[in-house]
Amino acid sequence: MKHSPQVARLIDALRALPGVGPKTAQRMAFHLLQEGRGGARALAEALTTSLDKVGRCRRCRMLTEGELCETCLAPQRDSSLVCVVESPADVVAVEQSGSYRGRYFVLMGHLSPLDGIGPDQLGIRELESLLDEGGVQELILATNPTVEGEATAHFLSDVASKRGIRTTRIAHGVPIGGELEYVDGGTLAHALSGRQSFT
Amino acid sequence: MKHSPQVARLIDALRALPGVGPKTAQRMAFHLLQEGRGGARALAEALTTSLDKVGRCRRCRMLTEGELCETCLAPQRDSSLVCVVESPADVVAVEQSGSYRGRYFVLMGHLSPLDGIGPDQLGIRELESLLDEGGVQELILATNPTVEGEATAHFLSDVASKRGIRTTRIAHGVPIGGELEYVDGGTLAHALSGRQSFT
Repeated sequence: MKHSPQVARLIDALRALPGVGPKTAQRMAFHLLQEGRGGARALAEALTTSLDKVGRCRRCRMLTEGELCETCLAPQRDSSLVCVVESPADVVAVEQSGSYRGRYFVLMGHLSPLDGIGPDQLGIRELESLLDEGGVQELILATNPTVEGEATAHFLSDVASKRGIRTTRIAHGVPIGGELEYVDGGTLAHALSGRQSFT
Repeated sequence: MKHSPQVARLIDALRALPGVGPKTAQRMAFHLLQEGRGGARALAEALTTSLDKVGRCRRCRMLTEGELCETCLAPQRDSSLVCVVESPADVVAVEQSGSYRGRYFVLMGHLSPLDGIGPDQLGIRELESLLDEGGVQELILATNPTVEGEATAHFLSDVASKRGIRTTRIAHGVPIGGELEYVDGGTLAHALSGRQSFT
């Protein structure tokens, strides 16, 4: 089926969204052009405005339209704690746990030399100047437990140690509510090696 | 987690897309604002241009930016056959079957008096004038096999009969490759009542 050029262009553009294949893109395009015209107009405007306005927090690299993000501006946040994560979605996940009151640093990726992603792309220089400011007492490494995430954590650990700042890594192990029987071997190995005294 | 207002607005706007909930919208927004900025810009432009340009074919109500859609313009299409479908996606589905060479008429919905969708909203007047032009010998009713789709088919059948035009309904039955064991009762009842002599 040949779509009319403009409809084809919209379907193609919708595929820029993550997880959207040709079928879903077609369904979205037809929906937007039929009953969803108001929403489509609002989406186009939100996209344009966001692209113009949303940048990164000067301090922690979180997505924000201000110079500093709300977490960095909040005075009740503990600025002696900095949690390093790979992406803005990780910040949301940690915030939703409701158990963290410190600040963040968002790498926007992980070390991946083959893809040309080195310390500069991850804003390590910004992190270094943040640490050099003084006041940070602990750097929590919350990168993903993947090969690249671990490598990034080791690299960051070196950066902090040089300045005499304590680094910690979030615990990896059996998820709460998970059953040992269904947990993979790598996770169980982590859970065993990371065991703690039980009181 | 409180997103910055502009990010929150983008996440909200993305929920206008069908099948996109809050989690997916957040993932899409972060993707678009991080690595997908080029795609986001193209999407915003495609949306705006489509909304301005794409309307409906004057003859068959298919989505198109021209006055007539490509199917209506194609001279090799059999204009004595008109297949009535509920949505543009149905046109795509029938086209992909590769077994139809006639024209279409797209209702953009089905009769649903409770939702205020009557003959006028479905462009029945346009269909009537198409039939009154002469030349149409068969109206194929390809509305969905739902209560509303069947009611719409009956209504359209009356419209055509009044003008002495033959109406047919697409066959409903066991899908090719399907197994009787897993086919629902309604479909099997249709398959039995619609049985044809086997040569």
